[in-house]
Amino acid sequence: MRRGEFQIIDRFFTYEGFGEWRSQGIGDDCALIDTGTERIAVTTDMMAIGTHFLPNANPEDVGYKALAVNLSDLAAAGASPRAFFLSIGLPERDDAWLAAFSRGLMSLAQTSGCALLGGDTTRTAAVGDVRAPVTISITAMGALSEGKGLGRAGARPGDDIWVSGTLGDAYAALKHRWGHWQLMPDAAESVFERMDRPTPRNALGSALLDLATACADVSDGLKADLGHILERSEVGADVLWDAVPISSALRALSASAQQEAALMGGDDYELVFTAPEALAHRVEQVGLLTQTRLTRIGKIREKVSGDNLTVRTQNGVIITTPTNGFDHFAV
Amino acid sequence: MRRGEFQIIDRFFTYEGFGEWRSQGIGDDCALIDTGTERIAVTTDMMAIGTHFLPNANPEDVGYKALAVNLSDLAAAGASPRAFFLSIGLPERDDAWLAAFSRGLMSLAQTSGCALLGGDTTRTAAVGDVRAPVTISITAMGALSEGKGLGRAGARPGDDIWVSGTLGDAYAALKHRWGHWQLMPDAAESVFERMDRPTPRNALGSALLDLATACADVSDGLKADLGHILERSEVGADVLWDAVPISSALRALSASAQQEAALMGGDDYELVFTAPEALAHRVEQVGLLTQTRLTRIGKIREKVSGDNLTVRTQNGVIITTPTNGFDHFAV
Repeated sequence: MRRGEFQIIDRFFTYEGFGEWRSQGIGDDCALIDTGTERIAVTTDMMAIGTHFLPNANPEDVGYKALAVNLSDLAAAGASPRAFFLSIGLPERDDAWLAAFSRGLMSLAQTSGCALLGGDTTRTAAVGDVRAPVTISITAMGALSEGKGLGRAGARPGDDIWVSGTLGDAYAALKHRWGHWQLMPDAAESVFERMDRPTPRNALGSALLDLATACADVSDGLKADLGHILERSEVGADVLWDAVPISSALRALSASAQQEAALMGGDDYELVFTAPEALAHRVEQVGLLTQTRLTRIGKIREKVSGDNLTVRTQNGVIITTPTNGFDHFAV
Repeated sequence: MRRGEFQIIDRFFTYEGFGEWRSQGIGDDCALIDTGTERIAVTTDMMAIGTHFLPNANPEDVGYKALAVNLSDLAAAGASPRAFFLSIGLPERDDAWLAAFSRGLMSLAQTSGCALLGGDTTRTAAVGDVRAPVTISITAMGALSEGKGLGRAGARPGDDIWVSGTLGDAYAALKHRWGHWQLMPDAAESVFERMDRPTPRNALGSALLDLATACADVSDGLKADLGHILERSEVGADVLWDAVPISSALRALSASAQQEAALMGGDDYELVFTAPEALAHRVEQVGLLTQTRLTRIGKIREKVSGDNLTVRTQNGVIITTPTNGFDHFAV
């Protein structure tokens, strides 16, 4: 969930719990539902061409990524992908587009063991004489053992802060495409791949179930998503900028561009999580077993009012960045 | 699912099953998923203002109905509503609209015991300088006992065909609003209520679990939805027009208007189901217990090629109607 959403959801869709199923995950990437003897994790995302995808985006990439972002939410909960439901609004029937979309979608579905079990297709609304572009909504469901599941609450002072992979690549890809930043052809290709085909970290998430105290996926940017963990856990954090993992593609950019991309840029779908210092060795083993680069970037500390998250260089310089993640309604 | 959807889903989203969760309900109103020791029913619907709702629709009605149509799918499966997930795309943040939408949505959620457990909010795509209207996608989940659940397959020759409530009211409301048909003020009010605030038949659906052989909700019109049952069950049907329950509001219209509304008109969200003749008395008891009008409108018979569903008057006149339900992509 993004910041603007929090405000909307808090204000309009928060109410006293009722009914037989209660969720453990309000404010987390997934709802964790105990249906009786089992626990399932559920997440939902809506995406539109032109808002979340470039108007001319490759439909195969659109299909892949539409599912990937949902699998990433399941990864943040440590849940194993099981099933998803697809609602798709189309301006008109376009078989070539649908075939490519389905190819990208189903390739990821099959490699992740997440079956398409239902859906709805409809026409998008008209604006004057023009139909709105393709709109996709996916609800994905994952399995968890009874009582298990990662969330954003639970980080404790003294915990290490870890991230998977590298941060900022998807943002750099967008900046390059817009012509704001210039990357070398090889670097551009690698960041485009990261933007168009993010790898949901499901094996990692599952492996962290007994290790991590809190976990979120980096969809809105490190500061925003780590910020959600801090808020929900009622703690603060110190992050060492020099430790934040940056791809070689981004290393060619200026320091301020790197900071903007890695701290503010969303869409990376890596995991940011916290774990007790005493378990650092086991976390490193999980990285090896799941073949995922894991980097310790800082420490959780007590919350100090007005200074929730501090990012410093090795030399002690505090890095400030303009805003705090991406907000559809703040654009 | 609607007819155009069937074609799209068959062509682009049908593939060999894989993964640990398999659905018993492909082609039904809900997917029935056995997660291990439990069964859950899941359905998803996407709706847009301007396509599924009039541009100036009352947001409270929109909220109510967006959930109602999903609860109706759960009713068709006999599942008890438990939880839903809401994705909503907004052209801009409009707090008055959201507050009313939420009121309508949550009033039905609370009376039906279906908790809102997660969601996503986003901005709709732009068409030129204009944002596309509100788009809503809901995924609803219901509980079923192990091995239970109604679907479209299972109707057998000799079974009675039943429908709940009255048919055609929502369609007549639309025709009246468009100025095609003229209803008296009282009649208009009652059909608008039916169009804007359909009653999902969840108590009925659950009560039919051990009685009905097949069940669907009337979202696309009786001929289309009964047609889905016939297709999936590989049987035919004879329906007696004079038995089809019509509201007094519709009785004032011409016979052909009544037939068009009750046979072709969708959006009623009643249930159409089949049950063995020997259980007719028990079905009637269910109607009394759930305070739902239930009417026997015909019989299931063997399939005869080219003549799947026949609607006749008491005098033996066959009623033909132009098309077969509503199809977004055939408009």
